[in-house]
Amino acid sequence: MSTTPPITLLPGFPDGSFDPNCPTRVVLDHVTSKWGVLVLVALDDRTLRWGELRRAVQGVSEKMLAQTLRTLEADGFVRRESFDVIPPHVEYSLTPLGDGLVAHLLPLLRWVSDHATAIVDAS
Amino acid sequence: MSTTPPITLLPGFPDGSFDPNCPTRVVLDHVTSKWGVLVLVALDDRTLRWGELRRAVQGVSEKMLAQTLRTLEADGFVRRESFDVIPPHVEYSLTPLGDGLVAHLLPLLRWVSDHATAIVDAS
Repeated sequence: MSTTPPITLLPGFPDGSFDPNCPTRVVLDHVTSKWGVLVLVALDDRTLRWGELRRAVQGVSEKMLAQTLRTLEADGFVRRESFDVIPPHVEYSLTPLGDGLVAHLLPLLRWVSDHATAIVDAS
Repeated sequence: MSTTPPITLLPGFPDGSFDPNCPTRVVLDHVTSKWGVLVLVALDDRTLRWGELRRAVQGVSEKMLAQTLRTLEADGFVRRESFDVIPPHVEYSLTPLGDGLVAHLLPLLRWVSDHATAIVDAS
């Protein structure tokens, strides 16, 4: 009988960290979603209203922006504050947990920004 | 006439860095795709054969793994080496550019791994 040994995704991380249904994988999917990264970094160090966020994250549809914000809010990365004025007005900002996450996304974005032109030209 | 001023996604990055069609956005989409991150980190510091990679990145379909690897290879992050033996045998590893990228993904994954359980429990 042949056995197929499991292969750890990342040696040094706890076993099962990246099993498809484990929390790490769920959160990683949220924060590395096409729009998740851009919404998070757009909120770095500032508060934006819905329309400002939509203009900052160019190309996002209203539906995808709403869905991305709901996920990031449920995860505790984004704070939504609604003001009871006319016209209604909603502001988004990072929570302290969101600040911690964005601190790890920014070096990645900086690296991608520095290398992207060379990478696309080469491919 | 009301004007709608543009909002920079990330102050401090070059203007237009994250326009939908600019290289930064294209590369960011590749490296933060659902499977891109996991394939890249699975290859950190080691060479894996197709079947090993598929077992390391649990839950990926053959089709998505093939597509992810083609994209990462075209971007210059992953090297594919094919050995002309019977049965045929293909190995994947990171290029030096891939090493540079993974060095920025690992701190992010470590942070997610450290916080994921609390995040999912809270939501």
